[in-house]
Amino acid sequence: MLERELRFSEEEYHRRLRAVKASMDRQGMEVLIVVDPANMNYLTGYDGWSFYVHQGLIIALDRDEPFWFGRAQDSNGARLTTWLSEESILGYPDYYVQSRYTHTMRYVANKIAEEGWDRRRIGVEMDGYWFSARMYRELTEHLPSARFADATSLVAWVKSVKSDVEVTMIRQAAKITEKAMDLAVKMIEPGVAEREVAAAVSAAQIAGVDGYGGDSPAIFPIIPSGQRTSTAHLTFHPERSYQTGDVVLLELGSARCHYHAPLSRTVYLGKVPDDLKKVADVVVAGLRKTLEFIAPGVTAEEVEAYWRGCLAGTGVEKPSRVGYSFGLAYVPDWGEHTVSLRPGDKSVLEPGMTIHFMPGIWLDTYGFECSEPFLVTDSGCEKLVNFPERLFTKEG
Amino acid sequence: MLERELRFSEEEYHRRLRAVKASMDRQGMEVLIVVDPANMNYLTGYDGWSFYVHQGLIIALDRDEPFWFGRAQDSNGARLTTWLSEESILGYPDYYVQSRYTHTMRYVANKIAEEGWDRRRIGVEMDGYWFSARMYRELTEHLPSARFADATSLVAWVKSVKSDVEVTMIRQAAKITEKAMDLAVKMIEPGVAEREVAAAVSAAQIAGVDGYGGDSPAIFPIIPSGQRTSTAHLTFHPERSYQTGDVVLLELGSARCHYHAPLSRTVYLGKVPDDLKKVADVVVAGLRKTLEFIAPGVTAEEVEAYWRGCLAGTGVEKPSRVGYSFGLAYVPDWGEHTVSLRPGDKSVLEPGMTIHFMPGIWLDTYGFECSEPFLVTDSGCEKLVNFPERLFTKEG
Repeated sequence: MLERELRFSEEEYHRRLRAVKASMDRQGMEVLIVVDPANMNYLTGYDGWSFYVHQGLIIALDRDEPFWFGRAQDSNGARLTTWLSEESILGYPDYYVQSRYTHTMRYVANKIAEEGWDRRRIGVEMDGYWFSARMYRELTEHLPSARFADATSLVAWVKSVKSDVEVTMIRQAAKITEKAMDLAVKMIEPGVAEREVAAAVSAAQIAGVDGYGGDSPAIFPIIPSGQRTSTAHLTFHPERSYQTGDVVLLELGSARCHYHAPLSRTVYLGKVPDDLKKVADVVVAGLRKTLEFIAPGVTAEEVEAYWRGCLAGTGVEKPSRVGYSFGLAYVPDWGEHTVSLRPGDKSVLEPGMTIHFMPGIWLDTYGFECSEPFLVTDSGCEKLVNFPERLFTKEG
Repeated sequence: MLERELRFSEEEYHRRLRAVKASMDRQGMEVLIVVDPANMNYLTGYDGWSFYVHQGLIIALDRDEPFWFGRAQDSNGARLTTWLSEESILGYPDYYVQSRYTHTMRYVANKIAEEGWDRRRIGVEMDGYWFSARMYRELTEHLPSARFADATSLVAWVKSVKSDVEVTMIRQAAKITEKAMDLAVKMIEPGVAEREVAAAVSAAQIAGVDGYGGDSPAIFPIIPSGQRTSTAHLTFHPERSYQTGDVVLLELGSARCHYHAPLSRTVYLGKVPDDLKKVADVVVAGLRKTLEFIAPGVTAEEVEAYWRGCLAGTGVEKPSRVGYSFGLAYVPDWGEHTVSLRPGDKSVLEPGMTIHFMPGIWLDTYGFECSEPFLVTDSGCEKLVNFPERLFTKEG
């Protein structure tokens, strides 16, 4: 007999499912197909590196439990990691896997028809990483009487307001982030191989801290140096060693049971050039002032406008968004794709939201990053990670 | 000025592009939109953890270079890591990113119209992880005169036959795999925390071996123990320590510049139960015999049938596919989604293909894995990793 390994109480999962069904109901969706692995985990606990094949949940307003569907050889994973009962676990035969002769969505469409849901309004995650154009086409062809609606962010919006037990997970991730960042700042010196730092940081993220383990984060450590810091998403160089004169960016999010705590800092090796010092001073001052401004009821675009006001007249510019909601996630992104701190985003900040304030600056030949993840509280916001806000320097 | 960091010669990239264009031409596609990050890397060298936003290549039969499109703040990444000239690098404004008010594919459709390609036949990766249903809908709505065709595996089939320089990369990855597997087998003992092993393995994968670095693999180390080995894709448990009586599965693929060398082995802690011993003996014998059978010209289904013949009468059953093509990949899968060793797959094995022969057995309460990645040669096949084929045991 397999023994279940749930991360939260069943009641916590039921609460989430009720909130998702309420949102479906408001939006006129009777059935919802969820294929994002973070959303599957959020609602059922399901956790496995099996999302490279088609899998998902089928949620209906009038059925208590979601159905889990996945590859038959992964169905024991559902028995182990979810609260679902046996009749809700559907393992499909292996010939559906990455086949050019059939498609998994035909299996899903058959199941939906079998349940008598084939004339309903069905929500699908139209713009999710895991819902391909072909999946959509197969569903519409095999469920010709159903109506489909875009539910890309339906679960993500529910998920964006965290419960206390979720905040606890994020605080645990934050302890791992502090440890990993501290290790990186200490290790980076001229002559040290970049890959050794990347290896040590990854190991620290997975090993966790005293008492609990971490996990692989949704974004691999972004640790570029030198000219590679002039752009946003390069990681370490597999052969290079750090040199005097390097800027090194560190965007490190650690995870605890897939709940993240992202953080960015910058190290300079040598005597800091005046232009970098100026950028660092402006960004850190603006970051601090903006965090004081943030409170529930403020909109995302107001936060960005306030930040932009802090930069006015300094000569520093930041043309891209300065933050986003984060939380429970799998590769390739710990962002939740809901709130973005940028012009035009009218999302209202609510207590329980967790947002990464990330004013990364990428100039022609180098960059600077100093960020803070925060929790929106009843009266303002609270930083989740405790790490000095400054440019770190090593004058060799 | 940014200095380019190319992993292969420009001629190697040109060769690949010519092969892709020839395949487009044969299939009647005049334009191809490539969004899979491995395919982007294959054709241009582009390498960054930026694939969580929309990005891609636009390839036209009558334009020499592909266009790269991506977020403006990532475009220096294209200048650094690709062979493309400045006029082929298109950075789009940040307001397209994960927006609920507009969509990046409108930018792409505009560019296609601007080039006068809006009445052409356009291939798209219909069933790729990175081509969502929404992306497809936006393209069809904004390019109403274009005809769209499914090019899900067009680049993958070209990619599945490796050049000599690619095989060299895979051999380098194999050295890292050997080191990581050896470390894991040595570390796993009753009382050792699972997370310490996962951390050490990840660090070894990234740090690489003398002379060159590794990378984060496309699949996080699959290292389940005990009851978690009864299913295919669970990883380590963040709090548990190994216990006497545990089966521990190790599915570890390491990567060198995103070229993989996967490998699976199994460790048993204690005196091996008879049933596990029997499964191990049958699988290892069948694996060895099947490798001797493999040669160019044989089909994927013939390999599986031969393997199934080796199991006949032993009582061991393997209902899922026993292998797949692998190579250059990003998360979430090092498989290429082309050749699958299973009934009905009529792909013909060709010299230069690299295939993971992976006869994983998952029973009711535990599993056994012993796999080999191999290169199809002119006369047979060659194992890529050198690691003993057996069940590893630790009798405390």
